[in-house]
Amino acid sequence: MPDGLEVHRMSDRWKTGRLEAFSDGVFAIAITLLVLEISVPESGFENLWKGIGDQWPSYLAYATSFLTIGGMWLAHHGIFRRLASADSMVMRLNILLLMLVSFLPFPTKLVGEAIHKTTSAERAAVIFYGLVLLAISVVTSALWRYVAGHRDLLEPDVTDEEVRALTIMTTPSIGFYVVVVALALIAPQVAAFGYLLIAVVGVFRQRGDRTASPPRA
Amino acid sequence: MPDGLEVHRMSDRWKTGRLEAFSDGVFAIAITLLVLEISVPESGFENLWKGIGDQWPSYLAYATSFLTIGGMWLAHHGIFRRLASADSMVMRLNILLLMLVSFLPFPTKLVGEAIHKTTSAERAAVIFYGLVLLAISVVTSALWRYVAGHRDLLEPDVTDEEVRALTIMTTPSIGFYVVVVALALIAPQVAAFGYLLIAVVGVFRQRGDRTASPPRA
Amino acid sequence: MPDGLEVHRMSDRWKTGRLEAFSDGVFAIAITLLVLEISVPESGFENLWKGIGDQWPSYLAYATSFLTIGGMWLAHHGIFRRLASADSMVMRLNILLLMLVSFLPFPTKLVGEAIHKTTSAERAAVIFYGLVLLAISVVTSALWRYVAGHRDLLEPDVTDEEVRALTIMTTPSIGFYVVVVALALIAPQVAAFGYLLIAVVGVFRQRGDRTASPPRA
Amino acid sequence: MPDGLEVHRMSDRWKTGRLEAFSDGVFAIAITLLVLEISVPESGFENLWKGIGDQWPSYLAYATSFLTIGGMWLAHHGIFRRLASADSMVMRLNILLLMLVSFLPFPTKLVGEAIHKTTSAERAAVIFYGLVLLAISVVTSALWRYVAGHRDLLEPDVTDEEVRALTIMTTPSIGFYVVVVALALIAPQVAAFGYLLIAVVGVFRQRGDRTASPPRA
Repeated sequence: MPDGLEVHRMSDRWKTGRLEAFSDGVFAIAITLLVLEISVPESGFENLWKGIGDQWPSYLAYATSFLTIGGMWLAHHGIFRRLASADSMVMRLNILLLMLVSFLPFPTKLVGEAIHKTTSAERAAVIFYGLVLLAISVVTSALWRYVAGHRDLLEPDVTDEEVRALTIMTTPSIGFYVVVVALALIAPQVAAFGYLLIAVVGVFRQRGDRTASPPRA
Repeated sequence: MPDGLEVHRMSDRWKTGRLEAFSDGVFAIAITLLVLEISVPESGFENLWKGIGDQWPSYLAYATSFLTIGGMWLAHHGIFRRLASADSMVMRLNILLLMLVSFLPFPTKLVGEAIHKTTSAERAAVIFYGLVLLAISVVTSALWRYVAGHRDLLEPDVTDEEVRALTIMTTPSIGFYVVVVALALIAPQVAAFGYLLIAVVGVFRQRGDRTASPPRA
Repeated sequence: MPDGLEVHRMSDRWKTGRLEAFSDGVFAIAITLLVLEISVPESGFENLWKGIGDQWPSYLAYATSFLTIGGMWLAHHGIFRRLASADSMVMRLNILLLMLVSFLPFPTKLVGEAIHKTTSAERAAVIFYGLVLLAISVVTSALWRYVAGHRDLLEPDVTDEEVRALTIMTTPSIGFYVVVVALALIAPQVAAFGYLLIAVVGVFRQRGDRTASPPRA
Repeated sequence: MPDGLEVHRMSDRWKTGRLEAFSDGVFAIAITLLVLEISVPESGFENLWKGIGDQWPSYLAYATSFLTIGGMWLAHHGIFRRLASADSMVMRLNILLLMLVSFLPFPTKLVGEAIHKTTSAERAAVIFYGLVLLAISVVTSALWRYVAGHRDLLEPDVTDEEVRALTIMTTPSIGFYVVVVALALIAPQVAAFGYLLIAVVGVFRQRGDRTASPPRA
């Protein structure tokens, strides 16, 4: 093959720009659809303040899912900012992650509905919700670990410090979710607040973008 | 630490570009979802013109929420255009703001439904709606005040004139919402039109982008 | 005021980039939400092919609204590509236009539902739908006419030829909608197909972007 | 006509940037709306684990439609990355493609509902769903074949190798859909898994972006 010919060829890699923009769109839509699952039943209008108050499980589930997706978006953004290009595995893990994030409004709705029902329904809904959160957490961590193990996918100037920081940012919530899902077997309502706590901590744990400014040394 | 090394490091700040794009997505989706809450009940098809007309509270709530979110988007845009970077507090206030804006379709639907019901349901729905609008207004103002108090977050060439103008743009609606929510205790339907008036004024009060053109002097 | 100071000041104009991106988001969401209004009632599952076929008014309304919004998006894009900046009036007309486009899923749903009902319900739904389409058309035309009358808002190199072409692209559908709405008084189902025809013609009438290529002379 | 004048003129072509961004928005929204069709009926809360499990046809339809749209988005992206500009036919085929993709949540919901019903309902829903998937596949292939036959629409450096690779990427699923739709006449549930298989293979078959890096020779 002559030198310099065929400089444009099919590659087994994707540029990350559009993949990230598409992912951002899915995160933004999933986070905004959550509200559609909240409503006051017809009977709630007789005493509407009570009717509004009775929906607290829906508000709890809304806030939890909103903050979970928000924190996941920040983590996703943190990963993709450091990616130079995506290979097939990154692309597939990302589609799996988006499929789970888009699915979250369904268990969110279930939790909101089940807490009005029997304890066994509560338990099933809260565990199911937790398992989806756990799956999201596992796939995010797997995505980062795969990338961290394939440094040629990363921007060349990503430092070991950044790799460690992102590993710490994406990993420990897996353990927390396992603990809280187990807790849901005994006390589902307490576990529901546990998910909210993990989500809040997840947002607070986020660290900023990488900066290119010279060291202050 | 040697000079010139580790120029890329984890920072406690975010670039505003993607944060703003993500926020824009949430605003655009929330504003477009509002219509899903409007429908004519089965019985309304017997005399459909009347059935369409009977939905006026839904149209009022739709227009109010649409213009409120539209005005908030313009204010949000006005703030982020002047931000050089976002720190953790900006990021958290922004997530809280988006969570409230995304929540708005729920009280919007309640107002549309309650005005067909009893006066006490009307009052509760209109006050609840007003409290969410008030909360959005308070968080927007808090976001701007925080940024205005941390001038290192702003683009270096933002003038005192601009800071004052944005303070005026984001603050006074808090007072208006307090007044109209109080009015809702006595006359909920009048208050519902009051929210629309605040939203219309809010859109009309918006001022344009900053220009970089030389002074006409 | 000294020369060269305060080069950044509050302006009464907006850059069009973000306004256009936000508008694109609203168009894309409104066009995609239309499908949510289509469903087969429980009874339709006994003979599902018939149940699917019985929804033809919903498919007609879906295709009409989809193509109408698609054509409007192209026209909107044609206008904003030529805008150098937006003033307050452009911004307000644009918000009004987006409010009407976002509203379209509601009359679309009504048409789909009413064609299963009485002739008077059909007539009301089809006229109401046509009035919303007419309003969208009037606001789009008003937006372009305002801009065409304020040439300082346009990019300096927009030619008279382009201004005329866009006037022709945005204006005549107003007349068509008036005629078809009048027709709906007599024959609502025929009028429903008339809206589809206008939408198809509207998409076909679109002309491309402006090119900056040298004349082929 | 004097040389050098009227360099900006109405063209019969569109730049692809905004067309692609608008299309991405529609793909992202359609993919995220799919979850809204999933819910557990009131009776399912008595034994919620069973209620959640009973929804498996909805999960199957969700995953299938999600992966189908995801794969279509990647194929669409592959086509538009190579387009230098879009003419009227490209624009119309693209609108038709988006109209079909946006429509997909409706047959997806039907499949989820019908598998709880009679075999004849199952068969109708699965075939109808397959026909929409087939139509999406045919329009995507037609779009690429049209572009491949009008090489002046492509970026000048697109190689024959790339054209062949995209033809292979966009074409064969047509045949697979025909086979699986025929299979649905006999065994609708098997066919439903067949669609999932085509979607998974479709995602796995995707190849990366074109690279501009020099050949490794």
